Amino acid sequence: MTRPLALILGVGNGLSAALARKLSEDYRLVLAARNVAKLAPLAAETGAQSVPVDARDPEAMSALFDGLPRAPRVAIYNPSYRVRAPIAELDPEEVRRAFDITAFGAFLMGKHAARTMLAADPVDGVRGTILFTGASAGVKGFANSASFAMGKFAQRGLAQSMARELHPKGIHVAWINIDGMIRNPGRTEPPDAPDSMLDPFAIAETYLNLINQDRSAWSIEIALRPWTESF
Amino acid sequence: MTRPLALILGVGNGLSAALARKLSEDYRLVLAARNVAKLAPLAAETGAQSVPVDARDPEAMSALFDGLPRAPRVAIYNPSYRVRAPIAELDPEEVRRAFDITAFGAFLMGKHAARTMLAADPVDGVRGTILFTGASAGVKGFANSASFAMGKFAQRGLAQSMARELHPKGIHVAWINIDGMIRNPGRTEPPDAPDSMLDPFAIAETYLNLINQDRSAWSIEIALRPWTESF
Amino acid sequence: MTRPLALILGVGNGLSAALARKLSEDYRLVLAARNVAKLAPLAAETGAQSVPVDARDPEAMSALFDGLPRAPRVAIYNPSYRVRAPIAELDPEEVRRAFDITAFGAFLMGKHAARTMLAADPVDGVRGTILFTGASAGVKGFANSASFAMGKFAQRGLAQSMARELHPKGIHVAWINIDGMIRNPGRTEPPDAPDSMLDPFAIAETYLNLINQDRSAWSIEIALRPWTESF
Amino acid sequence: MTRPLALILGVGNGLSAALARKLSEDYRLVLAARNVAKLAPLAAETGAQSVPVDARDPEAMSALFDGLPRAPRVAIYNPSYRVRAPIAELDPEEVRRAFDITAFGAFLMGKHAARTMLAADPVDGVRGTILFTGASAGVKGFANSASFAMGKFAQRGLAQSMARELHPKGIHVAWINIDGMIRNPGRTEPPDAPDSMLDPFAIAETYLNLINQDRSAWSIEIALRPWTESF
Repeated sequence: MTRPLALILGVGNGLSAALARKLSEDYRLVLAARNVAKLAPLAAETGAQSVPVDARDPEAMSALFDGLPRAPRVAIYNPSYRVRAPIAELDPEEVRRAFDITAFGAFLMGKHAARTMLAADPVDGVRGTILFTGASAGVKGFANSASFAMGKFAQRGLAQSMARELHPKGIHVAWINIDGMIRNPGRTEPPDAPDSMLDPFAIAETYLNLINQDRSAWSIEIALRPWTESF
Repeated sequence: MTRPLALILGVGNGLSAALARKLSEDYRLVLAARNVAKLAPLAAETGAQSVPVDARDPEAMSALFDGLPRAPRVAIYNPSYRVRAPIAELDPEEVRRAFDITAFGAFLMGKHAARTMLAADPVDGVRGTILFTGASAGVKGFANSASFAMGKFAQRGLAQSMARELHPKGIHVAWINIDGMIRNPGRTEPPDAPDSMLDPFAIAETYLNLINQDRSAWSIEIALRPWTESF
Repeated sequence: MTRPLALILGVGNGLSAALARKLSEDYRLVLAARNVAKLAPLAAETGAQSVPVDARDPEAMSALFDGLPRAPRVAIYNPSYRVRAPIAELDPEEVRRAFDITAFGAFLMGKHAARTMLAADPVDGVRGTILFTGASAGVKGFANSASFAMGKFAQRGLAQSMARELHPKGIHVAWINIDGMIRNPGRTEPPDAPDSMLDPFAIAETYLNLINQDRSAWSIEIALRPWTESF
Repeated sequence: MTRPLALILGVGNGLSAALARKLSEDYRLVLAARNVAKLAPLAAETGAQSVPVDARDPEAMSALFDGLPRAPRVAIYNPSYRVRAPIAELDPEEVRRAFDITAFGAFLMGKHAARTMLAADPVDGVRGTILFTGASAGVKGFANSASFAMGKFAQRGLAQSMARELHPKGIHVAWINIDGMIRNPGRTEPPDAPDSMLDPFAIAETYLNLINQDRSAWSIEIALRPWTESF
């Protein structure tokens, strides 16, 4: 029997690895990133195919989806880019870069995921799930962080627009606000504040729950933050 | 071995029954409602204890928690009250009633759940989960529905305030916006729009997911709506 | 020529006085409060009539409006009540009190203002303006402040519901979030942070601007905060 | 005596003309747009200087501000771009275009307005006001309108980030949500719904009120909509 296909775009902070491990239990997995060499161990471990792609390139993204063996049932977008600077000193190229990586690539993935999912047969009335990894910067623009706010706000507007269009067509779209630092080997957690960084497997659990939501009760946004985080 | 305790306040639209069935798998269950006669079959089916209580009565609610064999690990508040009327014709008694049932009772449950949970030993750093069943009326006040808006807004303000106070103390608080009609035997779903009413078991699944969230990645709000619902 | 009527409910932090002084230039003014003795100097200065009323009393509020010489063109609600306490120690009576003063009284004023305005002739298509003095606690529930959050959230839900019902009937409704401390003689401003408390006349200016908005461009919410306030 | 300088970027729907007429009473006015020929009559009427500029061009925008006789006290950004298409058919070039015109140009104006205002002497503690003309698409992403949502969300994130950074430095930043169609000669209003399109002079009045707000009571967002508009 053919396993459904799941696509993860972007690698980084430990979340992609947790998602790949979780999803590989039930899905045939495709990992796409600019630097596939970095992905090799994870691909080997999870039996995933890895595909090099620049998420900002319209033709490469179109080709990525056309090259898949079938429409994905799940598509997840992780890349983002941030830089800190006072507005008067913020380099215009950094603003473009933040938009391209955080929002334009998300649009390209969303567009082609929608295109291919809409052409596929629904299973129990559902054609697929499209998830975007967001941040609090998409809800509240922080000082000295205009380019990150612009990228994440744009990404959130994209997700909302897609949800309103695609839910009635059987495609579930959601935006997840990761409000805090993700635990990874390079980050030391304060000893007096255990679990003050988000566990990537805990995050992945929520992604899986969204993917498995019944279409009579879909969510379009959820925020995740450590118990120690003020908000 | 002692099973953890879960308390559900209020019965009604099919959600309570679904929650009771799900929770009874892992929890010793207490169902509290004004009319326990109506609860008898569900209590029998799930092995739950049923307790008569008026959620608006401070002393009765205090006694309810003092009468539990131990602090609850889960407490869920369901009651709400709505009436439609133009503002100029809205009876002040209806506004009080909506506040009392939807928000004041929620406060009383929240207060005593917090009090008893704070006195209990944490398990893996967590003392318990407190959930409030909300509605879109808590996010957006609709015309001719001021009393419902007031009650649900107040309930949401309560949940946010409790989350900010209690998360750092190991108690998870969340508010669930049920945005649509819940499927039940008395409601006929349009044949051309399957799953256009929320399945109570699908809702209960999300409640369970919130209860099981790792404390490094807690959510405080989530909205659920059918794929067919505009929003 | 008859001057239009403006009603201000509640006295306190200096805002009422600023509103009274501004409005008295163009309106015949009625000041209503529990303690009219305190109001006497302001009433004398602004030529206002002062009326004793408990804003929480349905019959007294109905009588207040029936006793006005004609429908008000402007009605403003100021009272609110706050107390700080951890949720587990919060007295249920304080929650009722906060709801009654902050939200139930606001409902009673809103109900009777709507009732009387709807029965009056419109001027340039507009029957009147109803304003509620809110706070950030109506947008975000803070820790150890559940009763204030419940009251202000409820008041904001009321204002939204009324706006959606009454705007198409020619009555403008708005909720003003006063996000910070209001300057008054009893409060000392830090010398290194001038204007870090809201000037009551600056607030009143925004109220007047809302009252004078053209019906083609009405606002339903506005937040005001000092330049020094983080948010 | 030298009049303060006000800069308006973008011309279009009647709002720019209303703003120019209002501001020319107290400010020396500079109108900047791609097509200054279209601006000639308005420039003549208001005594404004008109400057050709492509708002998306970093160097041209930098030169625009360097060419001003002094730092502006007011800077207003109007341009935006919208196209409607299902997500699967949305041309990536349109997404770039929407971002560039709606958000990237807004960033460039915001950056250089901040840069020049920060170098100028404050008047009564205030260095200037920066306003962005938004839309409901910046608060809620509508179906088949992803590129507009992305642009307006990004613009709103920019404004919030700038407000948090610049308010404590004496620069007032606000985002105005124009929620409805603006009245202009080419649009016919339904005879049974007078004032159902926003009057550009009514909008301009709110811009002026924001510009004149006391720094002890600044707003960062306001929405304007006709009395007939559902929301």
